[in-house]
Amino acid sequence: MTEFGFTLLGNDGAARIGRLATAHGEIETPVFMPVGTAATVKAVTPEEVAASGAQIVLANTYHLMLRPGAERIARLGGLHRFMNWPRPILTDSGGYQVMSLASLRRLDENGVTFQSHIDGSRHELTPERSIEIQGLLGSTIAMVFDECTSWPVSEGDAETSMLLSMRWAERSKAAFVPNPGYGLFGIVQGSVFPTLRERSARRLAEIGFDGYAIGGLAVGEGMDAMLDTVGFTAPLLPANKPRYLMGVGKPADLVAAVQRGIDMFDCVLPTRSGRTGQAFTRRGTVNVRNARHADDPRPLDEQCVCPACRSYSRAYLHHLTKSSEILGAILLTRHNLQRFQDLMVGLRAAISGRRLAAFAAAFAEDEAKGDIAPM
Amino acid sequence: MTEFGFTLLGNDGAARIGRLATAHGEIETPVFMPVGTAATVKAVTPEEVAASGAQIVLANTYHLMLRPGAERIARLGGLHRFMNWPRPILTDSGGYQVMSLASLRRLDENGVTFQSHIDGSRHELTPERSIEIQGLLGSTIAMVFDECTSWPVSEGDAETSMLLSMRWAERSKAAFVPNPGYGLFGIVQGSVFPTLRERSARRLAEIGFDGYAIGGLAVGEGMDAMLDTVGFTAPLLPANKPRYLMGVGKPADLVAAVQRGIDMFDCVLPTRSGRTGQAFTRRGTVNVRNARHADDPRPLDEQCVCPACRSYSRAYLHHLTKSSEILGAILLTRHNLQRFQDLMVGLRAAISGRRLAAFAAAFAEDEAKGDIAPM
Repeated sequence: MTEFGFTLLGNDGAARIGRLATAHGEIETPVFMPVGTAATVKAVTPEEVAASGAQIVLANTYHLMLRPGAERIARLGGLHRFMNWPRPILTDSGGYQVMSLASLRRLDENGVTFQSHIDGSRHELTPERSIEIQGLLGSTIAMVFDECTSWPVSEGDAETSMLLSMRWAERSKAAFVPNPGYGLFGIVQGSVFPTLRERSARRLAEIGFDGYAIGGLAVGEGMDAMLDTVGFTAPLLPANKPRYLMGVGKPADLVAAVQRGIDMFDCVLPTRSGRTGQAFTRRGTVNVRNARHADDPRPLDEQCVCPACRSYSRAYLHHLTKSSEILGAILLTRHNLQRFQDLMVGLRAAISGRRLAAFAAAFAEDEAKGDIAPM
Repeated sequence: MTEFGFTLLGNDGAARIGRLATAHGEIETPVFMPVGTAATVKAVTPEEVAASGAQIVLANTYHLMLRPGAERIARLGGLHRFMNWPRPILTDSGGYQVMSLASLRRLDENGVTFQSHIDGSRHELTPERSIEIQGLLGSTIAMVFDECTSWPVSEGDAETSMLLSMRWAERSKAAFVPNPGYGLFGIVQGSVFPTLRERSARRLAEIGFDGYAIGGLAVGEGMDAMLDTVGFTAPLLPANKPRYLMGVGKPADLVAAVQRGIDMFDCVLPTRSGRTGQAFTRRGTVNVRNARHADDPRPLDEQCVCPACRSYSRAYLHHLTKSSEILGAILLTRHNLQRFQDLMVGLRAAISGRRLAAFAAAFAEDEAKGDIAPM
């Protein structure tokens, strides 16, 4: 049986390339994980997710525990089988969504009780229950249950929140049943405060995890504060384990965070944007709903190999989005997934060739060009 | 260059199998045409439409003239290229939708003026403009501009309406520019009145078309009246040309109409139902939203080869539809398209083997069984 494990294969400055072995296959890092909240990466089939180059997807514990229910998914053979995705799946712990989506929340030392945003039913999430749910789902990589510290926050409140998350991290580790090829990641908290991040990172390393995430970012602090925090936090994490920046981000964020030593990312941006007519291209974001595309026979991105760019014009994609046709969401989601995966391919190759600085400069130059001129 | 033409290959009673040669490839009949109203078969890619076995799709002149516009599609290389569907496309004339969707309609001898249901803009459709639009789209099979007689209707009003449609049919034929491999179909009107249908069929045959449609049905008259009308109208149509029953129907309607000599069908049922959780199976329709499927690990239809049935459980499809996930619409649409195409494959084989009666009996028996029992 495959042991869960991370192998560092090279670096360029702080940036790293590596390989993560799991029960469901290997993952080359740096890696971007599309979000499959409710056991589906919205608007695309698993075949299309795989075709984009995705190696792992993220699913949300909070959503799945409420609907269709973790025990139900377990009876049906686990999440991989349920959603027809045989490759690795990372599940979050539910801690973030319970604070952002549920109502009538009550948080105490034990955990959080809350009301479902779907049907108002009462539920409880604790470190033990979160880990149990992730086990029922058959998650390849489980996350510790934590409190995502709100923003803005005082250093005192951030400390209190971080210390609670550390106690919950210890309980999560104790509740996790080791299984070859499956891993559990800790989550560093501490908001934007270096001393808190350092204490959090040290505490997690003492407990010992298969990987370390940086949580509590991309919550409104802005790109500069986010990257500063990543910059001083990443070096605090054990070098021989994968580092995961949760909930990030735009292509430029990914490049900058990789340069600071991050190995894993997840974000709803490529999928959510695909459903609202926003496309990510080498030349920045393109609003496909804009009338300038109505007569444009050119593909969204001439260099892109995705079906949306290979077989359809901007005019057609514009027509689909203006007409609220599902195929518009399908094609733009597929394209955005391709763009994010292609960026990760480029980053891995650049680190491998020790030319990341040049890659990042060319990336920024291309993005700054903006979209091609109208015809 | 391919000449447009129909070859009768065999029959079983009134039922026929044939082959229709077109500029965009051959079509085996009887054939079911999925509806791609706004230049997309809703919720599926053209690759999936083709994978289901579809040989031709229908697109709507009314929708496309309003958005994105026929001249625009022509500038972009035509509808086939626009929607990435290189196979045959049949376009309706706009006559039906202009009466059911547009507002502030004014109908006179010349045609119909109306207000767009999208943006309120004023437009006109005449036989000449309808044929021009269908030419701009590059339609493989164009339909004459007609008035879809409303229901219920008196015989006198039905006659007036039918005679107008016959004058418009003549103008449509005059406006149609012959092009090798492209065809123009006439549409028989006359509601449920045999003498009107006979006069209409005779008049159309005098004008001369590449195929003959039966219009003005599936508008509320009920299955018995529909099949009666098909039964006495089909034999009135030239035997050496394809016969197309517009807007029909459920699987049972298709079987019954094929038995009465119909070669072509279109209907929104498989696609529309796919977006509302309704699945067509060998054992009748299944409401996937029903809670009985929540824990069911079995496929929708064990005999079906579509991706929804090959790779997913009823429990998962139920979860997707309950969660309003786009993948639910994708998979159920794909399944329903497969079901309709498989039915046509079965019908063609049964006619070829002169065992249509047995096929129809087995079909009815299977449908009557109803869905498999809950586990």
